[in-house]
Amino acid sequence: MGTRVSNSSHSAYRVDSDILTTGPIEGSAKHYVDVGDLRVPHRRINLTNGEHLDVYDTSGPYTDATAVIDVEAGLPRARDSWHRPEPIDGASTQLAWARAGIVTDEMRFIAARENVDVELVRTEVAAGRAVIPANHRHPESEPMIIGKAFAVKVNANIGNSAVTSSIAEEVEKMVWATRWGADTIMDLSTGDDIHLTREWIMRNSPVPVGTVPIYQALEKVKGDPTKLTWEIYRDTVIEQAEQGVDYMTVHAGVLLRYVPLTARRVTGIVSRGGSIMAAWCLAHHEESFLYTHFDELCEIFRRYDITFSLGDGLRPGSIADANDEAQFAELRTLGELTGIAKSHGVQVMIEGPGHIPMHKIVENVRLEEELCEEAPFYTLGPLATDIAPAYDHITSAIGAAMIAQAGTAMLCYVTPKEHLGLPDRDDVKVGVITYKIAAHSADLAKGHPRAQERDDALSKARFEFRWTDQFNLALDPDTAREYHDETLPAEPAKTAHFCSMCGPKFCSMRISADVRAYAEEHDLVTAEDIDRRIAQEMAAKSAEFAEAGNRVYLPIDATSGATSTS
Amino acid sequence: MGTRVSNSSHSAYRVDSDILTTGPIEGSAKHYVDVGDLRVPHRRINLTNGEHLDVYDTSGPYTDATAVIDVEAGLPRARDSWHRPEPIDGASTQLAWARAGIVTDEMRFIAARENVDVELVRTEVAAGRAVIPANHRHPESEPMIIGKAFAVKVNANIGNSAVTSSIAEEVEKMVWATRWGADTIMDLSTGDDIHLTREWIMRNSPVPVGTVPIYQALEKVKGDPTKLTWEIYRDTVIEQAEQGVDYMTVHAGVLLRYVPLTARRVTGIVSRGGSIMAAWCLAHHEESFLYTHFDELCEIFRRYDITFSLGDGLRPGSIADANDEAQFAELRTLGELTGIAKSHGVQVMIEGPGHIPMHKIVENVRLEEELCEEAPFYTLGPLATDIAPAYDHITSAIGAAMIAQAGTAMLCYVTPKEHLGLPDRDDVKVGVITYKIAAHSADLAKGHPRAQERDDALSKARFEFRWTDQFNLALDPDTAREYHDETLPAEPAKTAHFCSMCGPKFCSMRISADVRAYAEEHDLVTAEDIDRRIAQEMAAKSAEFAEAGNRVYLPIDATSGATSTS
Repeated sequence: MGTRVSNSSHSAYRVDSDILTTGPIEGSAKHYVDVGDLRVPHRRINLTNGEHLDVYDTSGPYTDATAVIDVEAGLPRARDSWHRPEPIDGASTQLAWARAGIVTDEMRFIAARENVDVELVRTEVAAGRAVIPANHRHPESEPMIIGKAFAVKVNANIGNSAVTSSIAEEVEKMVWATRWGADTIMDLSTGDDIHLTREWIMRNSPVPVGTVPIYQALEKVKGDPTKLTWEIYRDTVIEQAEQGVDYMTVHAGVLLRYVPLTARRVTGIVSRGGSIMAAWCLAHHEESFLYTHFDELCEIFRRYDITFSLGDGLRPGSIADANDEAQFAELRTLGELTGIAKSHGVQVMIEGPGHIPMHKIVENVRLEEELCEEAPFYTLGPLATDIAPAYDHITSAIGAAMIAQAGTAMLCYVTPKEHLGLPDRDDVKVGVITYKIAAHSADLAKGHPRAQERDDALSKARFEFRWTDQFNLALDPDTAREYHDETLPAEPAKTAHFCSMCGPKFCSMRISADVRAYAEEHDLVTAEDIDRRIAQEMAAKSAEFAEAGNRVYLPIDATSGATSTS
Repeated sequence: MGTRVSNSSHSAYRVDSDILTTGPIEGSAKHYVDVGDLRVPHRRINLTNGEHLDVYDTSGPYTDATAVIDVEAGLPRARDSWHRPEPIDGASTQLAWARAGIVTDEMRFIAARENVDVELVRTEVAAGRAVIPANHRHPESEPMIIGKAFAVKVNANIGNSAVTSSIAEEVEKMVWATRWGADTIMDLSTGDDIHLTREWIMRNSPVPVGTVPIYQALEKVKGDPTKLTWEIYRDTVIEQAEQGVDYMTVHAGVLLRYVPLTARRVTGIVSRGGSIMAAWCLAHHEESFLYTHFDELCEIFRRYDITFSLGDGLRPGSIADANDEAQFAELRTLGELTGIAKSHGVQVMIEGPGHIPMHKIVENVRLEEELCEEAPFYTLGPLATDIAPAYDHITSAIGAAMIAQAGTAMLCYVTPKEHLGLPDRDDVKVGVITYKIAAHSADLAKGHPRAQERDDALSKARFEFRWTDQFNLALDPDTAREYHDETLPAEPAKTAHFCSMCGPKFCSMRISADVRAYAEEHDLVTAEDIDRRIAQEMAAKSAEFAEAGNRVYLPIDATSGATSTS
């Protein structure tokens, strides 16, 4: 993986296409569904029994075996040829169009991806309960929706810092993260070449890209927050808007008077954006320019259809600080800003914590929905405990699954390196897979249509000893196969009717198959069959049963009563 | 790691003591608290600021730098010198003594470990809401308690199968699992040398050991379940009881008439014990001998004080089968057996699933408590989705944390190899740490006294850039340190006031420290301070405020109202 100079129009660097991971995930193939003139991608998992399962696919052309990838040229600009409706009262946004009853191509595309009715897409967007982050200047992206009526989404953070990383690595991290299922990525670069890194990512990203413009603004004032001005910030936003950034985190809720509320916290302010704005407010003893210029920001956003991701600059950084005054004071202000943004026709989502113990998680969703007009909630974990650095993908997956079940629309992943270092390629994959688990668990718990199809297909494959299918249906086929092969590497083991956990003599799955055969043979399949059989036996043996003392058969109602909740 | 022949009384093998992992965890030291004549171990984490934190310690003498470990001789038989009360109506059990108002040495030891009043221990045991698995013939063990009023516990399964593993590896796995926090271990060996492997483990285990006797019984009939008899099973139980096994899984709730209820399941019967008993019942068309001879089993258990772990042989093996008729029919029978066991003075816990989507988890705890007299619930995960083999420690940690929050007393760990292969040493560690996360998250959510001390200490260390303390307070100091050092390996970085995530210019933690200084200087620390300041400013600027249109300062009540839930 390396960079070298070229004459490319968008950079002084050249990034070789062959540094990127391409080709289908093992056992899968790209499958397009034509919806009118739109081509909607799915990933088709082909099974050894001749069946297949189509699943949501975030990976873009990179996993299409027939696609020619040219990282210099960027991805095809598919959305440039789509129909774009006229602005409504100056707003050229999915929100404005949805409210006006207009079904956009983006909405049609999304309905086909999510297997839902397009009117659900339009009405949820119109109500502000869902957003479609799709800057007009990012035509390479495949539209997606973030809202609690839809599949829970996952964001992966990438980006270099002053200490590590190169542009090439960041582009590959984007491709790699979306390969494993990241629905959006955020470029959080803080080091050199911020503009250039972002340009490469934008032109090659099939998913929406988010940024935190204050990071680049701070670079422009050599890292001194007190030197920031509205003008520098505004120009940075426009620069990024022109590049096609789809959503931007804006910490406009960090008000001067909230800052001292963090003074007694165990971990103060842990958001970078929040701490920058807090430092600015304190130094100038003035209200945040993000707050006082918020209307102007809305004017910019609505021209490009950039979605606000209103940042929680005062989110808790520890269990001790969860759900405190500072956090909820800011959330109330984010609610006020939500109303203002929407009055400009701008789409909004709300960022959430952070570190929250399990019993305080649901309250976060309830308050967010109450204060912020049910704008989509987008949370970072939260971590359910502080005591496991190096495992914070897991501490936070617990919180993420629960907060998504409660209604959070998108989860920002956390990698094993959280709190310790910057994630490498392996960490990115582990983070994405872990968050796909949390998101999918929530989809199941919310009864999302068709979510359970994949669980059922995998479990059926497991029960029928179709090992290859079990691997290919997994979120990470490669690692599942690798773990299996560590113990039973031989190819025949892939079709063996046992595995290394129990050995050949001793297999519950095999015995279960015998049970099934027995039950069908004896017409004993349902609870009713069994009740009927017991009743027959009781009639035949009524004299013996009258003697009692025999616990072998309980009264019938004890059996059927146990089934009431299934 | 190797074995060689010796003249040891309990085996034909010799296991070198130096294959075992000994010595304290980095940054910690063994700390004993004397309670009367009992020495109660804690792990003391020494911090660089001169403070320390004592935490629960399951690791036994292996982490005591001064202990001499002789695996041939086994651990000291400390409990042999403790006072053992007379049997009550034939029952020589903690339950019988607790009901009689007797406080045992085991209860005193546990009260000191858990930092609770000894009367809480006695009354919870007396009520059957907690168990103390402590076979009189396992005097090497350090007593512990399993019950929802106490810290949530974690079990680690070890054991060889016909395909893999040696005795030495299994003993080291036991030492290794308890080093990282396993509260009990289960020896699930199914291959050769079951008796011998268990003997080595028992004599060297500082934690209670559980088994599933049907596995060994099956070995005695060459793996053919239909050849099993009550007599073979009973003799196996007595053999294991004599060795000191502290709790035994008994699948006595798999009744003949429940078996066909599994026929239409996606994954049938996935419990090994459950499938063995189902096969036996079907072959003989007779009720399970575990059920018909349950009273006799109780007579054996109460002599040794073995705790029943009533197995869920019909637990669901997939999301599709969760909370179905078969599962809850069996649970009702486990409730019946709980009453019988307790009438004999025998302690009981109840095993639970398995694979359960999040929205069906709480119902499992509610029903278990209702049907089984609130006997401690002991669950395997549950996995919140089926689609992530190779990550099932994570899919199940989500379910485990939630079910523990709802009242489950002990969690059986799941390793990354679940469904794929047998766990190796690294998998055991990842499984234990992952489950400590789930258990601790639940302790926090339940408001367990002092649980948050460790979170607070770690977060405070993090905020103060005490990197070494942050590592040492972590569940896994070694991996936390390793991940940090990958990016910033130099020793000065351990005290640097920044980290690789943001680089030196850009640190929210540092800015937060500035905020704290500012707030204290300006007497702006509480919400009241800030309200007072706003009121002062409003009075001074009342004229300007009357003009309105200025959103910089909201009315006071908007600020204070946001704090109601913190």
